[in-house]
Amino acid sequence: MPASPIRKLVPYAEKAKKRGMQVFHLNIGQPDIETPPQALDAVRRANIKVLEYSHSAGNESYRRKLVEYYKRVGIEVDYSQILVTTGGSEAILFGFMSCLDPGDEVIIPEPFYANYNGFAVAAGINVKPVTSRIEDSFALPSPEAFERAITEKTRAIVICNPNNPTGYLYSSREMETLRDLIKKYNLYLFSDEAYREFCYDGKHISAMTLKGVDDHVILMDTISKRYSACGGRIGAFITRNNTLYDTAMKFAQARLSPPSFGQILGEAAIDLPVDYFDHTRAEYLKRRDLLVSRLNKMPGVYCPNPGGAFYAMARLPIDDADRFAQWLLEDFSYRNQTVMVAPASGFYKTPGLGKQEVRLAYVLNTKAINKAMDCLEAALKEYM
Amino acid sequence: MPASPIRKLVPYAEKAKKRGMQVFHLNIGQPDIETPPQALDAVRRANIKVLEYSHSAGNESYRRKLVEYYKRVGIEVDYSQILVTTGGSEAILFGFMSCLDPGDEVIIPEPFYANYNGFAVAAGINVKPVTSRIEDSFALPSPEAFERAITEKTRAIVICNPNNPTGYLYSSREMETLRDLIKKYNLYLFSDEAYREFCYDGKHISAMTLKGVDDHVILMDTISKRYSACGGRIGAFITRNNTLYDTAMKFAQARLSPPSFGQILGEAAIDLPVDYFDHTRAEYLKRRDLLVSRLNKMPGVYCPNPGGAFYAMARLPIDDADRFAQWLLEDFSYRNQTVMVAPASGFYKTPGLGKQEVRLAYVLNTKAINKAMDCLEAALKEYM
Repeated sequence: MPASPIRKLVPYAEKAKKRGMQVFHLNIGQPDIETPPQALDAVRRANIKVLEYSHSAGNESYRRKLVEYYKRVGIEVDYSQILVTTGGSEAILFGFMSCLDPGDEVIIPEPFYANYNGFAVAAGINVKPVTSRIEDSFALPSPEAFERAITEKTRAIVICNPNNPTGYLYSSREMETLRDLIKKYNLYLFSDEAYREFCYDGKHISAMTLKGVDDHVILMDTISKRYSACGGRIGAFITRNNTLYDTAMKFAQARLSPPSFGQILGEAAIDLPVDYFDHTRAEYLKRRDLLVSRLNKMPGVYCPNPGGAFYAMARLPIDDADRFAQWLLEDFSYRNQTVMVAPASGFYKTPGLGKQEVRLAYVLNTKAINKAMDCLEAALKEYM
Repeated sequence: MPASPIRKLVPYAEKAKKRGMQVFHLNIGQPDIETPPQALDAVRRANIKVLEYSHSAGNESYRRKLVEYYKRVGIEVDYSQILVTTGGSEAILFGFMSCLDPGDEVIIPEPFYANYNGFAVAAGINVKPVTSRIEDSFALPSPEAFERAITEKTRAIVICNPNNPTGYLYSSREMETLRDLIKKYNLYLFSDEAYREFCYDGKHISAMTLKGVDDHVILMDTISKRYSACGGRIGAFITRNNTLYDTAMKFAQARLSPPSFGQILGEAAIDLPVDYFDHTRAEYLKRRDLLVSRLNKMPGVYCPNPGGAFYAMARLPIDDADRFAQWLLEDFSYRNQTVMVAPASGFYKTPGLGKQEVRLAYVLNTKAINKAMDCLEAALKEYM
């Protein structure tokens, strides 16, 4: 089982803080946006006498409410097609375990969310990467690249849209390419849409809206980023394939139920004013524009403009981002401050790729981002 | 993946209720005891602005507090040996995934908690049962029975103490038998102690107190039954084996964190008055005595007196408990009431065993238990 590449630098950050340093955390997707107070209030007001197990698929009231939410974002589903999970993490695990046998393969465009690897190990399956490139802004690799990766053991393709770690938002044409591939090769498409609400330069195309592939598509969702509610641990596994749903339900029944408090929060959040996401999106957009423009002004740095999520991948004029990230925490200081980044190597499956790249999460306010960029700029000068 | 034997009768119960029947639920371990209001209040009072991910091992404050709790029940552990999990379920899954490779075997005395099967399938491992018998009150099978089941693929023994589904409380001597076995054959011992607080006729011996096997023992725990907080989804994976802990941490990091609200509840519950469990235990004891005495008065029924948990296994004068349980819901009515029981066949791995047995959870008050027993008594007369 591989260790989390995002969390492995944590001990160095802890030591830096103990030395009195201020560390700007651009390394992890923990939003600083406030959890909607109305949703938190619903948990406070809940009249609970016995904190019971919920239905293994989640409270029916919450699932019915989720249907409304999905309808608003253009996804038609029935509540019986929704399985509430313990975070998006569990939706991924249920997906892998329900669709693949040990030894089977999934294809994932790299760089990809590193924990897919962990869940693949847990399910005993193998990840085959197809490489997307920073020069192409991390667009979807060509159909031919996918076809070269497909073997007789391939059962599924996993995408994250908009993408973590690249921020890339797949176009309507790219989604159609994926649809054609899964149809032609009879594959499942796992679509992780955790960042659906955060698209800046285009429209989000959900895999659930692709035509003719209802039995192939699994939506893996979460309220963590949408409502800045990571600690609620509430996600969803959604599919129109009834047989697959029933299989996932068996795994859901074994673990009894998803967390009750988080479901209350998630249900209440669906009643937020319809312009709720406008404010959050505007805030992230401001941050993205600042971050990307600051990065591209630094000598030797290249950062494509990400269309969604709250991540940017930047290529730095360095030889080894893992070493650089550690150096930032151990040996560097600018006005007693430093910055923590996620080295990209952990997001690539192909050894040696991404050594010059880092992922930056713009989950801090613009003032902090400016200070973090001051640090990074000074650090790059000093490091070279 | 097998379906949950406890939940498979649910559709029949739902239909019975739709016909206007009152169904007494003795089928599932959902306690009716109120969740401690002080613990629920801690969630209401929590000053949360951003509902963040917690540490992957759980909040340090909660883990430090858990050390106090375990000390009180005679278990010495350091907070760094505690990994907070999403329910006891996840502790079981982490245990299987961290200690066993696909194809490896665990030995479990049957009848056993049916979901162990589900987690074994998820981890790709095989369960080998050793049979405990109702005639022996479901005491631990002999060391020879374990030795006959051990192969070169055996890596672990799983026990649940006090036991679900039998209610059996393992004696000090039986725990020493287990210690000798795991030492001799270099096995892990997974000890599920979810019902630790509910022992009526003897002292609970935790596997964590066995001498000389620190590297072999994994405690799988949960607050679900202890504080009647099943929906909180908070458990713990505890071991003094550092290498094993580090492996489990990788699975924990992949799923990011356990639920935040439940951790707040669990932490607050540790400050409950020390006599808190006396009340709950007294209530369950009263119910047990009533249930067991009512059962043993029915012609042809035999129910050994369970020493702990809140389950009893009874042998009924019937040929097929699965059919009988379904008949109770579909065709039987006594004053417009019926009772739902868990057929024991689902708790046995060996085909054909337990066909005359049912598990009864005494999670209803004595008045309801009396009514449920009236139903069962009438049903047995009518069925024969």
